[in-house]
Amino acid sequence: MSVKAVTSLTNPTVKAVRALHLRKERDETGLFVAEGLKNVTEGVELGHAPQVLMFGKDAAEHPLTRRAVAATLAAGGEAIEVTHDILAKVSRRDNPQAVVGVFKQRFTALDALQPPSADVWVALHRVRDPGNLGTIVRTADAAGCGAVILVGECCDPYSVEAVRATMGSIFAVPIVRASETEFAAWRGGWPGSVVGTLLTAEVDHRQADYARPALILMGNEQQGLPPEMAALTDVNVKIPMRGRADSLNLSVATGIMIYAVG
Amino acid sequence: MSVKAVTSLTNPTVKAVRALHLRKERDETGLFVAEGLKNVTEGVELGHAPQVLMFGKDAAEHPLTRRAVAATLAAGGEAIEVTHDILAKVSRRDNPQAVVGVFKQRFTALDALQPPSADVWVALHRVRDPGNLGTIVRTADAAGCGAVILVGECCDPYSVEAVRATMGSIFAVPIVRASETEFAAWRGGWPGSVVGTLLTAEVDHRQADYARPALILMGNEQQGLPPEMAALTDVNVKIPMRGRADSLNLSVATGIMIYAVG
Repeated sequence: MSVKAVTSLTNPTVKAVRALHLRKERDETGLFVAEGLKNVTEGVELGHAPQVLMFGKDAAEHPLTRRAVAATLAAGGEAIEVTHDILAKVSRRDNPQAVVGVFKQRFTALDALQPPSADVWVALHRVRDPGNLGTIVRTADAAGCGAVILVGECCDPYSVEAVRATMGSIFAVPIVRASETEFAAWRGGWPGSVVGTLLTAEVDHRQADYARPALILMGNEQQGLPPEMAALTDVNVKIPMRGRADSLNLSVATGIMIYAVG
Repeated sequence: MSVKAVTSLTNPTVKAVRALHLRKERDETGLFVAEGLKNVTEGVELGHAPQVLMFGKDAAEHPLTRRAVAATLAAGGEAIEVTHDILAKVSRRDNPQAVVGVFKQRFTALDALQPPSADVWVALHRVRDPGNLGTIVRTADAAGCGAVILVGECCDPYSVEAVRATMGSIFAVPIVRASETEFAAWRGGWPGSVVGTLLTAEVDHRQADYARPALILMGNEQQGLPPEMAALTDVNVKIPMRGRADSLNLSVATGIMIYAVG
């Protein structure tokens, strides 16, 4: 196969990529869209070959684009040069990135995790905002966390919004899905501490002792950590609130916890 | 004055409020839009009476709406019951908040700040993303910071996106604007430490000594802290990067610094 040029919005590949904005389509195909040469390159470097690579004329000669094209074709994927209009439609943005890749979603099984391999791990209970989720994956990558575990019904880590916010870290951090029940059972074998963050906790997050590996469990944007989840922790701590605001943005709170524990 | 009902998108007040999506219009009028009963109530409680209050039929009888209406009318403002369609257009959302308030922007002068009044202060150099700026204002409020100082050309703290992300904290945290030159001169009189965050710094952010009051200076999303700004600090620290990601989201990094210093 080689690179083709596509100009029509009704091209089947273009239509298939656009459809990946829908969670149902992502769930059924197991695919997702990563935008931008940096993100796509991050995927390629970490051994995720694009199934489809789309790029504008301006980006065609960039060495990293050529490398991504080569990786795509070598893996039997489709590399196509497309119009600005197609990129805008695929990204739903007036000023789209010049390179867009379609990749296979990867989820790691809970049982495949090796707790001693990292000092800090993150579990999110029913996280709802894809921007928060993506930003947390980025922080988890920066801090060298072992994985991000999605507990219960969460937003999709492979939505365009979440992937954008990861800034490429979606390819670097193992993502795990688990029901509340699966998480509760698995947590029984956790060798270190499981740490909850609760507004009502009495211990300041900077004063607690965290046995390694530490697994940080965060509640969601609306309800925080419900009692049945808080009961699964070894220690619950609070990030002190000293002003009028009674809570932090979830991705900020998670970042504070990751660096306080790590 | 009393409450009127408005159903037309061409109503002059509706048009004026919609125009506040433009920065030029906000700059010229000195007004901004806060959405949602929680945010509007936060404003009212902190003594910011709405100039205009819009609400849907469903929200009209809520005690907090009534209180906001009373505060609006007492201050000579305009309180109007509007249609869902008007709320959607004003908020540019299909599912708009049921209450929208228009408030006067407030900026605090650099010289009016009292450094000993808080342990931690935040300065942002050329911050670009309104979501980040709003989230930082929210964190600054939660942590009891003295102010958020916008240094150089920044995005607008009173844009709808920024105000949304503050979750009401826009009314609680003093916002200051300063040019680089003004900041450099004023910083000379700072009684505590000025702390920069740099990827290239050698000191871990958790190992530095921070003299109080501590003023945290953060660079922007693209360039971080440029040398001429980093030269204005007493100590530069780094948040260690242990994974592949080479940076954190700005609002996350600022939150980590605020809680590490505070």
